[in-house]
Amino acid sequence: MRPRLRVYHGDEIALGPGKVDLLQAIDEAGTLAEAARRLGMSYMRAWKLLQTMNSCFKEPLVDTARGGAGHGKATLTATGRAALTLYRRMELETAQAIEPAWRELLGHLED
Amino acid sequence: MRPRLRVYHGDEIALGPGKVDLLQAIDEAGTLAEAARRLGMSYMRAWKLLQTMNSCFKEPLVDTARGGAGHGKATLTATGRAALTLYRRMELETAQAIEPAWRELLGHLED
Repeated sequence: MRPRLRVYHGDEIALGPGKVDLLQAIDEAGTLAEAARRLGMSYMRAWKLLQTMNSCFKEPLVDTARGGAGHGKATLTATGRAALTLYRRMELETAQAIEPAWRELLGHLED
Repeated sequence: MRPRLRVYHGDEIALGPGKVDLLQAIDEAGTLAEAARRLGMSYMRAWKLLQTMNSCFKEPLVDTARGGAGHGKATLTATGRAALTLYRRMELETAQAIEPAWRELLGHLED
């Protein structure tokens, strides 16, 4: 079962499975370039996903350092942390809520 | 918020938002042709979606009458009824389960 939760902001997807995976990868990798590499996506695609996310929220989700010793370093803001945590919580809540119906449905599937 | 629940069977999607909408339309319309028309999809596409669904489950989800007075008439089987009901129930359960986190997340979105 894969609940694909999508948060719409107007016509844009503010947050969905791919964007949340990117947020998590940035949190783990510390740079956008490394996060993109780990997810097997181009830097340009990762950058565009991030721009879309940032434009949909009141505050940016990720701070990116430009220049200096920390050049390229990317860190989640408080809003980015909240978005990641709330989304993962919703995924878990979904999985728990639908489990009985889910099991019943699986019973009808071809083995 | 749009929870897009997908039930996988191997590499195929046994049940997802589009297939469930088709099941419901068949139930309401009584024929595959009219169900397809109401959903704005071609008959061929609707037929293919139905074939995929039927092949993923132990029993077909829809009975289609061939020939005779009821030619073209399509009705949900007990399995089809169960699949439709369980899927809609999972959608509802998802919406209810995630509501608090959902509201909190919406608070972070740009107005």
